[in-house]
Amino acid sequence: MAEDNKFDIAIIGGGPAGLSAALTGRIRNKNIAVFEHLDFSEKLQKAHKVDNYLGLPEVSGKGLMQHFTGHVLAHGPKLVKEKVMNVFPGDNMFTLLTPQTTYEAKAVIFATGVVSTLLFEGERELLGRGVSYCATCDGRMFEGKDVAVISYTEEGENETVFLSELCRNVYFLPQYKGDFTKMRAPIKVLSAKPKAIVGDGQVEKLVTDKEEIKLHGVFIMRQSDPVENLLPGLELEGEVIKVNRDMSTSIPGVFAAGDCTGKPWQIAKATGEGLVAVLSAITYIDKIDLA
Amino acid sequence: MAEDNKFDIAIIGGGPAGLSAALTGRIRNKNIAVFEHLDFSEKLQKAHKVDNYLGLPEVSGKGLMQHFTGHVLAHGPKLVKEKVMNVFPGDNMFTLLTPQTTYEAKAVIFATGVVSTLLFEGERELLGRGVSYCATCDGRMFEGKDVAVISYTEEGENETVFLSELCRNVYFLPQYKGDFTKMRAPIKVLSAKPKAIVGDGQVEKLVTDKEEIKLHGVFIMRQSDPVENLLPGLELEGEVIKVNRDMSTSIPGVFAAGDCTGKPWQIAKATGEGLVAVLSAITYIDKIDLA
Repeated sequence: MAEDNKFDIAIIGGGPAGLSAALTGRIRNKNIAVFEHLDFSEKLQKAHKVDNYLGLPEVSGKGLMQHFTGHVLAHGPKLVKEKVMNVFPGDNMFTLLTPQTTYEAKAVIFATGVVSTLLFEGERELLGRGVSYCATCDGRMFEGKDVAVISYTEEGENETVFLSELCRNVYFLPQYKGDFTKMRAPIKVLSAKPKAIVGDGQVEKLVTDKEEIKLHGVFIMRQSDPVENLLPGLELEGEVIKVNRDMSTSIPGVFAAGDCTGKPWQIAKATGEGLVAVLSAITYIDKIDLA
Repeated sequence: MAEDNKFDIAIIGGGPAGLSAALTGRIRNKNIAVFEHLDFSEKLQKAHKVDNYLGLPEVSGKGLMQHFTGHVLAHGPKLVKEKVMNVFPGDNMFTLLTPQTTYEAKAVIFATGVVSTLLFEGERELLGRGVSYCATCDGRMFEGKDVAVISYTEEGENETVFLSELCRNVYFLPQYKGDFTKMRAPIKVLSAKPKAIVGDGQVEKLVTDKEEIKLHGVFIMRQSDPVENLLPGLELEGEVIKVNRDMSTSIPGVFAAGDCTGKPWQIAKATGEGLVAVLSAITYIDKIDLA
Protein backbone atom coordinates (compact mmCIF):
# COMPACT_ATOMS: atom_id res chain seq x y z
CA MET A 1 0.00 0.00 0.00
CA ALA A 2 1.25 3.48 -0.86
CA GLU A 3 2.61 5.28 2.19
CA ASP A 4 0.20 8.16 1.66
CA ASN A 5 -2.73 5.81 2.24
CA LYS A 6 -1.43 4.93 5.72
CA PHE A 7 -2.26 6.96 8.78
CA ASP A 8 -1.82 6.93 12.52
CA ILE A 9 -5.46 7.79 13.08
CA ALA A 10 -8.43 7.69 10.70
CA ILE A 11 -11.29 9.94 11.76
CA ILE A 12 -14.61 9.10 10.12
CA GLY A 13 -16.67 12.28 9.94
CA GLY A 14 -15.81 15.98 9.66
CA GLY A 15 -18.32 17.54 12.05
CA PRO A 16 -17.33 19.26 15.31
CA ALA A 17 -16.27 16.00 16.98
CA GLY A 18 -14.10 14.81 14.09
CA LEU A 19 -12.54 18.24 13.57
CA SER A 20 -11.74 18.65 17.26
CA ALA A 21 -10.07 15.22 17.23
CA ALA A 22 -8.10 16.14 14.08
CA LEU A 23 -6.94 19.44 15.56
CA THR A 24 -5.44 17.99 18.72
CA GLY A 25 -4.15 14.96 16.83
CA ARG A 26 -2.20 17.22 14.47
CA ILE A 27 -0.93 19.41 17.32
CA ARG A 28 0.32 16.17 18.88
CA ASN A 29 2.09 15.56 15.56
CA LYS A 30 0.20 12.46 14.46
CA ASN A 31 -0.52 11.56 10.86
CA ILE A 32 -4.27 12.13 10.67
CA ALA A 33 -6.90 11.49 7.98
CA VAL A 34 -10.39 12.97 8.16
CA PHE A 35 -12.93 11.15 5.99
CA GLU A 36 -15.71 13.57 5.06
CA HIS A 37 -17.57 12.74 1.87
CA LEU A 38 -20.21 15.43 2.29
CA ASP A 39 -19.85 19.06 3.20
CA PHE A 40 -18.66 19.46 6.80
CA SER A 41 -21.66 18.82 9.07
CA GLU A 42 -24.58 19.80 6.89
CA LYS A 43 -26.77 19.64 9.97
CA LEU A 44 -24.77 22.30 11.81
CA GLN A 45 -24.42 24.45 8.70
CA LYS A 46 -28.19 24.71 8.51
CA ALA A 47 -28.42 26.06 12.08
CA HIS A 48 -29.57 29.67 11.89
CA LYS A 49 -27.83 30.79 15.07
CA VAL A 50 -25.66 29.05 17.63
CA ASP A 51 -25.12 30.86 20.92
CA ASN A 52 -23.93 28.23 23.34
CA TYR A 53 -20.51 27.39 22.00
CA LEU A 54 -18.40 29.09 24.64
CA GLY A 55 -16.29 31.96 23.31
CA LEU A 56 -18.04 32.46 19.96
CA PRO A 57 -21.31 34.29 20.69
CA GLU A 58 -24.20 34.54 18.22
CA VAL A 59 -22.60 32.86 15.26
CA SER A 60 -24.43 31.16 12.38
CA GLY A 61 -24.00 27.43 11.97
CA LYS A 62 -22.29 28.08 8.66
CA GLY A 63 -19.98 30.67 10.19
CA LEU A 64 -19.09 28.34 13.04
CA MET A 65 -18.16 25.54 10.64
CA GLN A 66 -16.00 28.02 8.72
CA HIS A 67 -14.16 28.93 11.94
CA PHE A 68 -13.77 25.23 12.70
CA THR A 69 -12.57 24.05 9.29
CA GLY A 70 -10.24 27.04 8.86
CA HIS A 71 -8.64 26.35 12.21
CA VAL A 72 -8.20 22.62 11.65
CA LEU A 73 -7.17 22.55 7.99
CA ALA A 74 -4.35 25.04 8.76
CA HIS A 75 -2.82 22.22 10.80
CA GLY A 76 -2.69 19.92 7.80
CA PRO A 77 -4.66 16.77 8.42
CA LYS A 78 -5.28 14.78 5.23
CA LEU A 79 -8.85 15.45 4.10
CA VAL A 80 -10.28 12.45 2.21
CA LYS A 81 -13.53 13.20 0.42
CA GLU A 82 -14.61 9.58 0.22
CA LYS A 83 -17.23 7.63 2.11
CA VAL A 84 -15.94 4.89 4.37
CA MET A 85 -18.03 1.80 3.63
CA ASN A 86 -16.29 -0.77 5.84
CA VAL A 87 -13.69 -0.95 8.58
CA PHE A 88 -11.80 -4.21 9.06
CA PRO A 89 -9.75 -4.78 12.21
CA GLY A 90 -6.38 -6.44 11.52
CA ASP A 91 -3.12 -7.00 13.33
CA ASN A 92 -2.57 -3.67 15.14
CA MET A 93 -3.94 -2.02 12.01
CA PHE A 94 -7.37 -1.23 10.58
CA THR A 95 -8.25 -1.35 6.91
CA LEU A 96 -10.82 1.17 5.67
CA LEU A 97 -12.63 0.66 2.37
CA THR A 98 -14.17 3.46 0.37
CA PRO A 99 -15.82 3.04 -3.04
CA GLN A 100 -12.58 4.40 -4.55
CA THR A 101 -9.75 2.75 -2.66
CA THR A 102 -8.29 1.32 0.55
CA TYR A 103 -6.63 2.99 3.54
CA GLU A 104 -4.90 1.83 6.69
CA ALA A 105 -4.77 3.33 10.15
CA LYS A 106 -3.49 2.25 13.55
CA ALA A 107 -6.55 3.64 15.29
CA VAL A 108 -10.01 4.73 14.17
CA ILE A 109 -12.32 7.39 15.59
CA PHE A 110 -16.00 7.22 14.68
CA ALA A 111 -17.42 10.74 14.52
CA THR A 112 -20.22 9.85 12.17
CA GLY A 113 -22.95 12.02 13.63
CA VAL A 114 -26.44 11.10 14.65
CA VAL A 115 -27.02 7.47 14.04
CA SER A 116 -29.77 7.12 11.51
CA THR A 117 -33.29 6.37 12.58
CA LEU A 118 -34.47 2.84 12.85
CA LEU A 119 -33.65 0.54 10.00
CA PHE A 120 -36.45 -0.36 7.60
CA GLU A 121 -38.20 -3.62 8.16
CA GLY A 122 -36.26 -6.23 6.21
CA GLU A 123 -33.21 -3.99 5.73
CA ARG A 124 -30.85 -5.87 8.00
CA GLU A 125 -31.96 -9.32 6.81
CA LEU A 126 -31.61 -8.44 3.13
CA LEU A 127 -28.36 -6.46 3.32
CA GLY A 128 -26.06 -7.90 0.65
CA ARG A 129 -29.07 -9.74 -0.83
CA GLY A 130 -30.35 -6.78 -2.81
CA VAL A 131 -30.03 -4.09 -0.14
CA SER A 132 -26.92 -1.91 -0.55
CA TYR A 133 -25.53 1.37 0.76
CA CYS A 134 -23.25 2.04 -2.22
CA ALA A 135 -24.21 2.22 -5.89
CA THR A 136 -20.60 2.70 -6.96
CA CYS A 137 -19.72 -0.56 -5.20
CA ASP A 138 -22.70 -2.74 -6.06
CA GLY A 139 -24.46 -1.09 -9.02
CA ARG A 140 -23.11 -3.47 -11.67
CA MET A 141 -24.86 -6.40 -10.01
CA PHE A 142 -28.16 -4.84 -11.08
CA GLU A 143 -27.54 -4.28 -14.80
CA GLY A 144 -30.81 -4.46 -16.70
CA LYS A 145 -32.78 -4.90 -13.48
CA ASP A 146 -35.13 -2.71 -11.42
CA VAL A 147 -33.88 -0.82 -8.38
CA ALA A 148 -34.96 1.90 -5.95
CA VAL A 149 -32.83 4.54 -4.26
CA ILE A 150 -34.06 5.80 -0.90
CA SER A 151 -32.01 8.93 -0.25
CA TYR A 152 -31.61 11.25 2.72
CA THR A 153 -28.84 13.31 1.07
CA GLU A 154 -28.30 15.07 -2.26
CA GLU A 155 -25.40 12.71 -2.80
CA GLY A 156 -28.00 10.08 -3.60
CA GLU A 157 -28.92 11.96 -6.77
CA ASN A 158 -25.58 11.27 -8.44
CA GLU A 159 -25.74 7.64 -7.42
CA THR A 160 -29.22 7.46 -8.93
CA VAL A 161 -28.08 8.95 -12.22
CA PHE A 162 -25.24 6.43 -12.29
CA LEU A 163 -27.71 3.58 -11.72
CA SER A 164 -29.98 4.90 -14.47
CA GLU A 165 -27.17 4.21 -16.94
CA LEU A 166 -27.17 0.53 -15.94
CA CYS A 167 -30.62 -0.45 -14.80
CA ARG A 168 -33.99 -0.87 -16.45
CA ASN A 169 -36.19 1.01 -14.00
CA VAL A 170 -34.82 3.27 -11.28
CA TYR A 171 -37.22 4.55 -8.61
CA PHE A 172 -35.88 7.56 -6.70
CA LEU A 173 -37.45 8.20 -3.30
CA PRO A 174 -35.92 11.40 -1.88
CA GLN A 175 -36.57 11.83 1.87
CA TYR A 176 -35.63 15.54 1.81
CA LYS A 177 -36.81 18.65 -0.03
CA GLY A 178 -35.13 19.52 -3.30
CA ASP A 179 -35.45 20.12 -6.99
CA PHE A 180 -35.56 16.80 -8.81
CA THR A 181 -36.46 18.06 -12.30
CA LYS A 182 -33.07 16.98 -13.64
CA MET A 183 -33.97 13.35 -12.97
CA ARG A 184 -34.70 11.83 -16.42
CA ALA A 185 -36.10 8.50 -17.59
CA PRO A 186 -35.63 5.74 -16.69
CA ILE A 187 -35.63 7.47 -13.28
CA LYS A 188 -39.06 7.82 -11.71
CA VAL A 189 -39.18 10.21 -8.77
CA LEU A 190 -41.64 8.99 -6.14
CA SER A 191 -42.87 11.09 -3.25
CA ALA A 192 -43.44 8.31 -0.76
CA LYS A 193 -42.25 7.01 2.59
CA PRO A 194 -40.61 3.57 2.52
CA LYS A 195 -42.11 1.10 4.98
CA ALA A 196 -40.52 -2.29 4.40
CA ILE A 197 -38.21 -4.23 2.13
CA VAL A 198 -39.61 -7.65 1.38
CA GLY A 199 -38.11 -10.79 -0.08
CA ASP A 200 -37.46 -14.45 0.54
CA GLY A 201 -33.65 -14.63 0.65
CA GLN A 202 -33.41 -11.93 -2.01
CA VAL A 203 -35.11 -8.53 -2.39
CA GLU A 204 -38.44 -8.84 -4.21
CA LYS A 205 -40.33 -5.66 -3.45
CA LEU A 206 -40.34 -2.32 -1.66
CA VAL A 207 -43.43 -1.36 0.30
CA THR A 208 -44.15 2.36 0.72
CA ASP A 209 -47.02 4.25 2.30
CA LYS A 210 -48.54 4.50 -1.20
CA GLU A 211 -47.76 1.35 -3.14
CA GLU A 212 -45.75 -1.82 -3.52
CA ILE A 213 -42.96 -1.85 -6.10
CA LYS A 214 -41.56 -5.06 -7.52
CA LEU A 215 -37.77 -4.77 -7.90
CA HIS A 216 -34.40 -6.47 -7.44
CA GLY A 217 -32.39 -3.97 -5.46
CA VAL A 218 -32.80 -1.18 -2.92
CA PHE A 219 -30.04 1.37 -2.34
CA ILE A 220 -30.26 3.39 0.87
CA MET A 221 -28.24 6.61 1.07
CA ARG A 222 -28.15 8.08 4.55
CA GLN A 223 -25.84 10.79 5.91
CA SER A 224 -24.22 8.00 7.84
CA ASP A 225 -24.83 4.33 7.55
CA PRO A 226 -25.81 2.23 10.52
CA VAL A 227 -22.57 1.87 12.45
CA GLU A 228 -23.13 -1.84 13.00
CA ASN A 229 -22.78 -2.30 9.25
CA LEU A 230 -19.61 -0.22 9.04
CA LEU A 231 -17.84 -2.29 11.67
CA PRO A 232 -19.66 -5.47 12.70
CA GLY A 233 -19.23 -6.35 16.36
CA LEU A 234 -18.97 -2.78 17.60
CA GLU A 235 -21.07 -2.77 20.74
CA LEU A 236 -24.06 -0.44 20.77
CA GLU A 237 -26.22 0.89 23.58
CA GLY A 238 -29.64 1.29 22.05
CA GLU A 239 -28.89 3.07 18.77
CA VAL A 240 -25.64 4.73 19.78
CA ILE A 241 -22.07 3.50 20.11
CA LYS A 242 -21.27 2.36 23.62
CA VAL A 243 -18.27 4.29 24.96
CA ASN A 244 -16.27 4.50 28.14
CA ARG A 245 -15.25 7.77 29.80
CA ASP A 246 -12.09 7.82 27.66
CA MET A 247 -14.22 7.39 24.52
CA SER A 248 -12.91 3.89 23.87
CA THR A 249 -15.41 1.38 22.48
CA SER A 250 -15.79 -2.38 22.74
CA ILE A 251 -13.06 -2.86 20.10
CA PRO A 252 -9.46 -1.96 21.07
CA GLY A 253 -8.14 0.85 18.88
CA VAL A 254 -11.64 2.06 17.98
CA PHE A 255 -12.89 5.26 19.63
CA ALA A 256 -16.03 7.33 19.12
CA ALA A 257 -17.07 10.93 19.70
CA GLY A 258 -19.95 13.29 19.13
CA ASP A 259 -23.57 12.62 18.26
CA CYS A 260 -22.90 8.95 17.44
CA THR A 261 -22.25 8.30 21.15
CA GLY A 262 -25.62 9.71 22.22
CA LYS A 263 -27.34 12.85 23.41
CA PRO A 264 -27.10 15.72 24.03
CA TRP A 265 -26.55 16.55 20.38
CA GLN A 266 -24.56 19.68 21.08
CA ILE A 267 -21.38 21.16 19.68
CA ALA A 268 -19.42 21.49 22.93
CA LYS A 269 -20.17 17.90 23.87
CA ALA A 270 -18.92 16.82 20.44
CA THR A 271 -15.70 18.86 20.52
CA GLY A 272 -14.93 17.74 24.06
CA GLU A 273 -15.43 14.10 23.16
CA GLY A 274 -13.36 14.47 19.99
CA LEU A 275 -10.48 15.82 22.04
CA VAL A 276 -10.71 13.02 24.60
CA ALA A 277 -11.02 10.39 21.85
CA VAL A 278 -7.90 11.49 20.01
CA LEU A 279 -5.81 11.68 23.17
CA SER A 280 -6.97 8.16 24.06
CA ALA A 281 -6.17 7.00 20.52
CA ILE A 282 -2.66 8.47 20.80
CA THR A 283 -2.11 6.65 24.10
CA TYR A 284 -3.28 3.45 22.41
CA ILE A 285 -0.97 3.94 19.41
CA ASP A 286 2.05 4.78 21.56
CA LYS A 287 1.46 1.53 23.41
CA ILE A 288 1.29 -0.68 20.30
CA ASP A 289 4.29 1.13 18.78
CA LEU A 290 6.31 0.18 21.88
CA ALA A 291 5.12 -3.41 21.94
CA MET B 1 -34.11 33.15 52.97
CA ALA B 2 -34.11 36.11 50.61
CA GLU B 3 -35.29 35.11 47.15
CA ASP B 4 -32.09 36.40 45.60
CA ASN B 5 -30.10 33.81 47.52
CA LYS B 6 -32.09 30.99 45.91
CA PHE B 7 -31.16 29.46 42.59
CA ASP B 8 -32.14 26.67 40.29
CA ILE B 9 -28.51 25.63 39.83
CA ALA B 10 -25.40 26.57 41.80
CA ILE B 11 -22.19 26.14 39.82
CA ILE B 12 -19.06 26.00 41.97
CA GLY B 13 -16.14 27.30 39.92
CA GLY B 14 -15.83 29.80 37.06
CA GLY B 15 -13.35 28.06 34.76
CA PRO B 16 -14.26 26.75 31.30
CA ALA B 17 -16.46 23.94 32.69
CA GLY B 18 -18.44 26.20 35.04
CA LEU B 19 -18.82 28.95 32.44
CA SER B 20 -20.00 26.52 29.76
CA ALA B 21 -22.58 25.15 32.20
CA ALA B 22 -23.71 28.68 33.11
CA LEU B 23 -24.05 29.68 29.45
CA THR B 24 -26.37 26.85 28.45
CA GLY B 25 -28.20 27.05 31.77
CA ARG B 26 -29.04 30.71 31.14
CA ILE B 27 -30.00 30.04 27.52
CA ARG B 28 -32.36 27.41 28.90
CA ASN B 29 -33.72 30.18 31.12
CA LYS B 30 -32.70 28.78 34.49
CA ASN B 31 -31.75 30.88 37.49
CA ILE B 32 -28.01 30.25 37.74
CA ALA B 33 -25.34 31.23 40.25
CA VAL B 34 -21.63 30.88 39.50
CA PHE B 35 -19.45 30.84 42.62
CA GLU B 36 -15.97 32.10 41.71
CA HIS B 37 -14.02 33.60 44.58
CA LEU B 38 -10.78 34.01 42.63
CA ASP B 39 -10.17 35.39 39.18
CA PHE B 40 -11.69 33.11 36.51
CA SER B 41 -9.38 30.12 36.08
CA GLU B 42 -5.99 31.51 37.09
CA LYS B 43 -4.42 28.38 35.67
CA LEU B 44 -5.79 28.99 32.18
CA GLN B 45 -5.05 32.70 32.31
CA LYS B 46 -1.39 31.89 32.80
CA ALA B 47 -1.30 29.78 29.61
CA HIS B 48 0.88 31.55 27.09
CA LYS B 49 -0.89 30.19 24.01
CA VAL B 50 -3.83 27.89 23.48
CA ASP B 51 -4.29 26.46 19.99
CA ASN B 52 -6.54 23.46 20.40
CA TYR B 53 -9.83 25.06 21.38
CA LEU B 54 -11.72 24.56 18.12
CA GLY B 55 -12.68 27.80 16.38
CA LEU B 56 -10.38 30.17 18.29
CA PRO B 57 -6.87 29.64 16.92
CA GLU B 58 -3.70 30.86 18.63
CA VAL B 59 -5.26 32.73 21.50
CA SER B 60 -3.60 33.50 24.83
CA GLY B 61 -5.05 31.90 27.96
CA LYS B 62 -5.98 35.35 29.21
CA GLY B 63 -7.64 36.25 25.89
CA LEU B 64 -9.58 33.01 25.86
CA MET B 65 -10.95 33.61 29.35
CA GLN B 66 -11.96 37.11 28.28
CA HIS B 67 -13.91 35.64 25.33
CA PHE B 68 -15.48 33.11 27.69
CA THR B 69 -16.47 35.48 30.50
CA GLY B 70 -17.72 38.15 28.09
CA HIS B 71 -19.92 35.62 26.34
CA VAL B 72 -21.36 34.13 29.53
CA LEU B 73 -21.82 37.26 31.64
CA ALA B 74 -23.85 38.84 28.83
CA HIS B 75 -26.43 36.14 29.54
CA GLY B 76 -26.80 37.28 33.14
CA PRO B 77 -25.96 34.46 35.52
CA LYS B 78 -25.50 35.68 39.10
CA LEU B 79 -21.77 35.88 39.79
CA VAL B 80 -21.03 35.29 43.49
CA LYS B 81 -17.46 36.16 44.48
CA GLU B 82 -17.49 34.02 47.58
CA LYS B 83 -15.86 30.71 48.38
CA VAL B 84 -18.21 27.80 48.95
CA MET B 85 -17.05 26.06 52.13
CA ASN B 86 -19.77 23.43 52.51
CA VAL B 87 -22.66 21.95 50.60
CA PHE B 88 -25.46 20.31 52.57
CA PRO B 89 -28.03 18.14 50.80
CA GLY B 90 -31.60 18.74 52.01
CA ASP B 91 -35.11 17.98 50.87
CA ASN B 92 -34.91 18.56 47.10
CA MET B 93 -32.68 21.51 47.91
CA PHE B 94 -29.01 22.06 48.66
CA THR B 95 -27.67 24.63 51.11
CA LEU B 96 -24.33 26.22 50.28
CA LEU B 97 -22.30 27.99 52.93
CA THR B 98 -19.74 30.67 52.20
CA PRO B 99 -17.82 32.62 54.85
CA GLN B 100 -20.24 35.49 54.20
CA THR B 101 -23.69 33.93 53.94
CA THR B 102 -25.94 31.06 52.88
CA TYR B 103 -27.44 30.11 49.52
CA GLU B 104 -29.89 27.53 48.28
CA ALA B 105 -30.07 25.67 44.98
CA LYS B 106 -32.08 22.78 43.58
CA ALA B 107 -29.02 21.28 41.89
CA VAL B 108 -25.28 21.76 42.25
CA ILE B 109 -22.52 21.44 39.66
CA PHE B 110 -18.96 20.99 40.88
CA ALA B 111 -16.55 22.64 38.45
CA THR B 112 -13.84 23.18 40.99
CA GLY B 113 -10.84 22.43 38.83
CA VAL B 114 -7.94 20.12 39.44
CA VAL B 115 -8.36 18.49 42.76
CA SER B 116 -5.47 19.50 44.97
CA THR B 117 -2.53 17.24 45.44
CA LEU B 118 -2.45 14.76 48.24
CA LEU B 119 -3.52 15.98 51.64
CA PHE B 120 -0.80 16.56 54.21
CA GLU B 121 -0.17 13.81 56.69
CA GLY B 122 -2.51 14.45 59.61
CA GLU B 123 -4.67 16.93 57.69
CA ARG B 124 -7.77 14.79 57.41
CA GLU B 125 -7.58 13.49 60.98
CA LEU B 126 -7.17 16.97 62.50
CA LEU B 127 -9.68 18.83 60.31
CA GLY B 128 -11.91 20.76 62.71
CA ARG B 129 -9.41 20.05 65.48
CA GLY B 130 -7.05 22.86 64.61
CA VAL B 131 -6.94 22.37 60.84
CA SER B 132 -9.18 24.79 58.93
CA TYR B 133 -9.69 25.98 55.36
CA CYS B 134 -11.25 29.33 56.30
CA ALA B 135 -9.79 32.02 58.55
CA THR B 136 -12.92 34.14 58.28
CA CYS B 137 -14.96 31.21 59.59
CA ASP B 138 -12.67 29.83 62.27
CA GLY B 139 -10.13 32.55 63.06
CA ARG B 140 -11.73 33.68 66.32
CA MET B 141 -11.17 30.24 67.85
CA PHE B 142 -7.44 31.01 67.81
CA GLU B 143 -7.38 34.40 69.56
CA GLY B 144 -4.05 34.86 71.36
CA LYS B 145 -2.77 31.55 70.03
CA ASP B 146 -0.18 30.48 67.44
CA VAL B 147 -1.22 29.52 63.91
CA ALA B 148 0.28 28.83 60.51
CA VAL B 149 -1.18 29.60 57.10
CA ILE B 150 -0.11 27.30 54.25
CA SER B 151 -1.22 29.11 51.12
CA TYR B 152 -1.31 28.20 47.44
CA THR B 153 -3.09 31.42 46.41
CA GLU B 154 -2.64 35.15 47.00
CA GLU B 155 -6.01 35.09 48.70
CA GLY B 156 -4.20 33.51 51.67
CA GLU B 157 -2.36 36.79 52.26
CA ASN B 158 -5.50 38.66 53.29
CA GLU B 159 -6.55 35.80 55.50
CA THR B 160 -3.11 35.88 57.10
CA VAL B 161 -3.32 39.62 57.77
CA PHE B 162 -6.73 39.07 59.33
CA LEU B 163 -5.33 36.33 61.57
CA SER B 164 -2.41 38.57 62.57
CA GLU B 165 -4.94 40.92 64.19
CA LEU B 166 -6.15 38.10 66.44
CA CYS B 167 -3.34 35.65 67.04
CA ARG B 168 -0.04 35.75 68.90
CA ASN B 169 2.27 34.27 66.27
CA VAL B 170 1.26 33.79 62.65
CA TYR B 171 3.54 31.73 60.40
CA PHE B 172 2.90 32.29 56.70
CA LEU B 173 4.12 29.54 54.36
CA PRO B 174 3.43 30.65 50.78
CA GLN B 175 3.67 27.78 48.27
CA TYR B 176 3.89 30.15 45.30
CA LYS B 177 6.16 33.00 44.18
CA GLY B 178 5.27 36.51 45.21
CA ASP B 179 6.27 39.66 47.05
CA PHE B 180 5.61 39.19 50.75
CA THR B 181 7.30 42.36 52.05
CA LYS B 182 3.94 43.75 53.20
CA MET B 183 3.64 40.96 55.75
CA ARG B 184 4.37 42.63 59.13
CA ALA B 185 4.87 41.29 62.65
CA PRO B 186 3.49 39.16 64.17
CA ILE B 187 3.52 37.47 60.75
CA LYS B 188 6.66 35.44 60.04
CA VAL B 189 7.08 34.46 56.39
CA LEU B 190 8.70 31.02 56.13
CA SER B 191 10.10 29.60 52.93
CA ALA B 192 9.47 25.94 53.67
CA LYS B 193 7.53 22.94 52.46
CA PRO B 194 4.97 21.53 54.91
CA LYS B 195 5.35 17.82 55.57
CA ALA B 196 2.91 16.85 58.33
CA ILE B 197 0.45 18.19 60.86
CA VAL B 198 0.89 16.47 64.19
CA GLY B 199 -1.28 16.29 67.27
CA ASP B 200 -3.03 13.98 69.64
CA GLY B 201 -6.71 14.85 69.10
CA GLN B 202 -5.79 18.50 68.59
CA VAL B 203 -3.14 20.21 66.44
CA GLU B 204 0.17 20.51 68.32
CA LYS B 205 2.79 21.14 65.67
CA LEU B 206 3.55 21.61 62.00
CA VAL B 207 6.49 19.72 60.54
CA THR B 208 8.21 21.25 57.52
CA ASP B 209 11.26 20.26 55.52
CA LYS B 210 13.25 22.71 57.67
CA GLU B 211 11.86 22.71 61.21
CA GLU B 212 9.08 21.79 63.59
CA ILE B 213 6.78 24.59 64.74
CA LYS B 214 4.66 24.31 67.89
CA LEU B 215 1.24 25.85 67.31
CA HIS B 216 -2.52 25.49 67.81
CA GLY B 217 -3.94 25.93 64.36
CA VAL B 218 -3.08 25.36 60.70
CA PHE B 219 -5.03 27.12 57.93
CA ILE B 220 -4.65 25.66 54.44
CA MET B 221 -5.63 27.87 51.51
CA ARG B 222 -5.76 25.98 48.23
CA GLN B 223 -7.34 27.06 44.94
CA SER B 224 -9.95 24.46 45.68
CA ASP B 225 -10.43 22.45 48.82
CA PRO B 226 -10.53 18.69 48.78
CA VAL B 227 -13.98 17.92 47.40
CA GLU B 228 -14.61 15.28 50.02
CA ASN B 229 -14.55 18.06 52.62
CA LEU B 230 -16.92 20.27 50.64
CA LEU B 231 -19.58 17.58 50.40
CA PRO B 232 -18.95 14.49 52.54
CA GLY B 233 -20.15 11.28 50.95
CA LEU B 234 -19.51 12.34 47.37
CA GLU B 235 -17.97 9.28 45.78
CA LEU B 236 -14.49 9.67 44.39
CA GLU B 237 -12.45 7.58 41.98
CA GLY B 238 -8.89 8.01 43.09
CA GLU B 239 -8.58 11.75 43.60
CA VAL B 240 -11.32 12.84 41.19
CA ILE B 241 -15.09 12.94 41.42
CA LYS B 242 -16.70 9.79 40.07
CA VAL B 243 -19.15 10.68 37.29
CA ASN B 244 -21.45 8.89 34.91
CA ARG B 245 -21.71 9.68 31.20
CA ASP B 246 -24.39 12.31 31.97
CA MET B 247 -22.01 13.90 34.54
CA SER B 248 -24.19 12.87 37.46
CA THR B 249 -22.35 11.86 40.65
CA SER B 250 -23.16 9.46 43.47
CA ILE B 251 -25.49 12.06 45.04
CA PRO B 252 -28.76 12.84 43.20
CA GLY B 253 -28.86 16.48 42.13
CA VAL B 254 -25.08 16.84 42.25
CA PHE B 255 -23.20 16.95 38.96
CA ALA B 256 -19.54 17.56 38.12
CA ALA B 257 -17.58 18.81 35.11
CA GLY B 258 -14.08 19.70 34.05
CA ASP B 259 -10.73 18.96 35.64
CA CYS B 260 -12.32 17.78 38.91
CA THR B 261 -13.68 14.71 37.07
CA GLY B 262 -10.23 13.66 35.83
CA LYS B 263 -7.85 13.96 32.91
CA PRO B 264 -7.33 15.12 30.25
CA TRP B 265 -7.08 18.60 31.73
CA GLN B 266 -8.14 20.35 28.56
CA ILE B 267 -10.49 23.19 27.77
CA ALA B 268 -12.73 21.41 25.25
CA LYS B 269 -13.22 18.47 27.60
CA ALA B 270 -14.21 20.93 30.34
CA THR B 271 -16.67 22.94 28.22
CA GLY B 272 -18.24 19.77 26.84
CA GLU B 273 -18.71 18.31 30.29
CA GLY B 274 -20.09 21.61 31.61
CA LEU B 275 -22.71 21.58 28.88
CA VAL B 276 -23.70 17.99 29.56
CA ALA B 277 -23.77 18.59 33.34
CA VAL B 278 -26.13 21.54 33.11
CA LEU B 279 -28.51 19.78 30.73
CA SER B 280 -28.59 16.81 33.11
CA ALA B 281 -29.15 19.19 36.04
CA ILE B 282 -32.08 20.79 34.20
CA THR B 283 -33.62 17.38 33.53
CA TYR B 284 -33.22 16.58 37.24
CA ILE B 285 -34.82 19.87 38.32
CA ASP B 286 -37.73 19.52 35.92
CA LYS B 287 -38.39 16.11 37.42
CA ILE B 288 -38.44 17.29 41.06
CA ASP B 289 -40.51 20.33 40.11
CA LEU B 290 -43.15 18.00 38.68
CA ALA B 291 -43.10 15.63 41.65
